Amino acid sequence: MKIYLASGNVNKKKEVQELLPSHKIVLPKEEGIDFDPEETGSTFFENSMIKAKALYGIVQAPVLADDSGLCVDFLNGAPGIHSARYGALNGEHVSAEAGINKVLEELKGVKDRSARFACCMIFLLNEDRFYSVQETCEGNITEAPSGSGGFGYDPIFFVEEFGKTFAELSPEQKNSVSHRGRALEAITKLIEGL
Amino acid sequence: MKIYLASGNVNKKKEVQELLPSHKIVLPKEEGIDFDPEETGSTFFENSMIKAKALYGIVQAPVLADDSGLCVDFLNGAPGIHSARYGALNGEHVSAEAGINKVLEELKGVKDRSARFACCMIFLLNEDRFYSVQETCEGNITEAPSGSGGFGYDPIFFVEEFGKTFAELSPEQKNSVSHRGRALEAITKLIEGL
Repeated sequence: MKIYLASGNVNKKKEVQELLPSHKIVLPKEEGIDFDPEETGSTFFENSMIKAKALYGIVQAPVLADDSGLCVDFLNGAPGIHSARYGALNGEHVSAEAGINKVLEELKGVKDRSARFACCMIFLLNEDRFYSVQETCEGNITEAPSGSGGFGYDPIFFVEEFGKTFAELSPEQKNSVSHRGRALEAITKLIEGL
Repeated sequence: MKIYLASGNVNKKKEVQELLPSHKIVLPKEEGIDFDPEETGSTFFENSMIKAKALYGIVQAPVLADDSGLCVDFLNGAPGIHSARYGALNGEHVSAEAGINKVLEELKGVKDRSARFACCMIFLLNEDRFYSVQETCEGNITEAPSGSGGFGYDPIFFVEEFGKTFAELSPEQKNSVSHRGRALEAITKLIEGL
């Protein structure tokens, strides 16, 4: 089956392709499709569905989409769905450093540093049928960034199981416990069962 | 695992229990829980999630919830999420006959009678983790009701594969092709994999 990935990220494509060897994973840009819908939802599910339906509307074929973010308990779940724009004055995407600095600033002197990454992944088969999995990965926000792998808030997200931040893990280690890895693993089970 | 079913229906419990023999399925009323949340969502997913979160808030344990409805193409997807209240003057639930009569009236003389049942099932593990499957069953609206099995719009929903309405099928036949049967089958795969 040809599955369009609602993303521009070549690494995401590689990851999904490896988990679904019997299907053909395609990025919109590989077919010259300009794809950048406005994420106006109020939950990870809504934003993931906005992306999935926008791309389905163009390609009329099965689509895999996801929306992820960091939820810090002391900040009542922020940055959450605003993770990619946290600290921006104009609502635009900001650099990973800007988001990290804002979170560290807000947690200055705070003892409760518990947080979780969440990922809502949706496989949209057509306008009325879908599979969705929302998974999390529990961790703690460090006092300072550490590690150079991953992206976004990875350098300040400490995972007890490995005793390291996400940015200090190998891609394989990170995928084995991460919110995205878990959601993708569950949803691929359903796709393989089709 | 103890799984609460967001329903008062003993037959639904039996069906789910058979598909998940290694888990204990419990209805809220079996533990004296009064459960009847207002379904204010605008999609099957939203209403299913409202039920799931309302029950989770009470029991703080995994919950299985679903929301279903009939979507008629000529009626732009109606009755849809209003299936249980279609034809009611006051927004209350109506008898199956009242809903059926309204649909048949609206389709009087109409050739395009294509429709589908949709079911969105959600397994909520905690406030941040869930599995969801929305499945459909394609059919056509008959000219008159036929059959005495099932419930709701079943007597006017004709399935090509069996050459019968849902109300003329055995429970096993209906479950093998129905929107609920398919959604439940997919979601139980994920629950068994936990």
